[in-house]
Amino acid sequence: MKPVQGRREFLQIAAAGAATALAGSPALGLERGGGREAKAEVLSAPPVAGRGEPKFELGLASYTLRKFDLAKTIELTKRVGLKHIALKDMHLPLTSSRDQIQAAAAQVKEASLDLYGCGVVYMKNEDEVSRAFEYAKAAGMRVIIGVPQYELLPLVDKMVREYDIKLAIHNHGPGDETYPLPSTAYEKIKDLDKRIGLCNDIGHTIRAGMDPAASILEFGDRLHDVHIKDVSAADPSGVEIEIGRGVIDIPNVMRALIEINYAGIVSFEYEKDADDPVPGLAESVGYARGVLATL
Amino acid sequence: MKPVQGRREFLQIAAAGAATALAGSPALGLERGGGREAKAEVLSAPPVAGRGEPKFELGLASYTLRKFDLAKTIELTKRVGLKHIALKDMHLPLTSSRDQIQAAAAQVKEASLDLYGCGVVYMKNEDEVSRAFEYAKAAGMRVIIGVPQYELLPLVDKMVREYDIKLAIHNHGPGDETYPLPSTAYEKIKDLDKRIGLCNDIGHTIRAGMDPAASILEFGDRLHDVHIKDVSAADPSGVEIEIGRGVIDIPNVMRALIEINYAGIVSFEYEKDADDPVPGLAESVGYARGVLATL
Repeated sequence: MKPVQGRREFLQIAAAGAATALAGSPALGLERGGGREAKAEVLSAPPVAGRGEPKFELGLASYTLRKFDLAKTIELTKRVGLKHIALKDMHLPLTSSRDQIQAAAAQVKEASLDLYGCGVVYMKNEDEVSRAFEYAKAAGMRVIIGVPQYELLPLVDKMVREYDIKLAIHNHGPGDETYPLPSTAYEKIKDLDKRIGLCNDIGHTIRAGMDPAASILEFGDRLHDVHIKDVSAADPSGVEIEIGRGVIDIPNVMRALIEINYAGIVSFEYEKDADDPVPGLAESVGYARGVLATL
Repeated sequence: MKPVQGRREFLQIAAAGAATALAGSPALGLERGGGREAKAEVLSAPPVAGRGEPKFELGLASYTLRKFDLAKTIELTKRVGLKHIALKDMHLPLTSSRDQIQAAAAQVKEASLDLYGCGVVYMKNEDEVSRAFEYAKAAGMRVIIGVPQYELLPLVDKMVREYDIKLAIHNHGPGDETYPLPSTAYEKIKDLDKRIGLCNDIGHTIRAGMDPAASILEFGDRLHDVHIKDVSAADPSGVEIEIGRGVIDIPNVMRALIEINYAGIVSFEYEKDADDPVPGLAESVGYARGVLATL
């Protein structure tokens, strides 16, 4: 933490043009390892101004609770104070009947949670695209976080218009040959309907060598969902960890989301401790709230 | 969150003299209930500048884990990433033998935790004062968080010199006839040895109508420990709650601790969910870390 005034001045000077210059640049020297020192290094990626009130809300990617059934998932989501949820298929199988989908959606709604989306949904053929949109429609979801093969994008483009449901392409980092980075996805969808956009998974983004805040700024016009998390290293060796214990500069990520006026959901996908995820999830949720309260 | 520049300017203007003016003033109109709006109201108590690096560290008041034995308490403290602990007597009875105390201290140290203190220790007679200092000495503790009756303060004054161990008087809010507020304790100890000071329990402080940040600033020269928490209302009806969900302006508390160069431990005393405290404790720890990462 530098003296406040000095840093604020820097923020204001650096904010306008710096993001574009950095987004997409190679690894940014981020491979120095975890902890506070490393994050200071990451901040040589320029801090974002992020002035104004956040328009987004926090939610849960239910993959976090993949070892629990839907009822327990609802209970634990509420326990950590989250009000929005996107269901992964172990909580509501993609093969469910329309009645089953509507029953599950009613169960979520009765618990005063907003079932805003689903995913990650992999789509390898036309039937899987159609099924995903029918599923989302039956559940009343607003966004499908998905991974459609390139050749299915024209069909997705037709579907988002027909159903008026967004599709957010999820980047999966190094090792993902289809969409390793937000930039990979953006290139493929930039000329399609604006309802096709990105789910920026900031853990995979930094593991693939791109600064998360910079990527949010650069592709902000098509950001439809966010998977928020932290990782232990800014390279392919990075593993998921409690938010605040890793290398991602979460305050800067939040500033970037404010800067682009992001108005969707920022969902926690906490992948560590699958059998006992609540402490790490709660710590992560608390950290994000503490950041937002301080900006 | 207001526009950054405007608020920062206000911070600099307001910082110097305002705290003294507010500390000790009646309830500050804080009784408007929880959430972000209420905290904005609390901020009519002036924001503190809090420039510089924090010199304090986060720890645990083991009362949080009062339903668990010492081994489990150590395990859970480490799980939420805390490195400093003050033991309450259910984890190490005040009646323990010297050997038992040293064995427990060794158990804590072997787990790479810093056994920095104990408490809250109530002292109603001279024997209880002597016992507390012998206990702390045997365990290698640096501070006793305690509640000595007024008439015992001369003996405490003698003991802190003899043992070179600090005593931090814990305020317990409305209903505590001895030390309801930090100001009550400060009045009694201000002319005694400087090793006698305060453990500011910010939950009880705000429940008794004093702004926590202002009280930290006003009595900062004698602050020897902090119990950090949040409460649902800034009046006697307030109950303990996850940090960030209540009425206390935690960023301002942290700024105040930085402002006074506090170099001790800030310990979480999470009193809710005694049977299952880890999620709420973890959320609270995460929140505090997120605040510190953003200041």
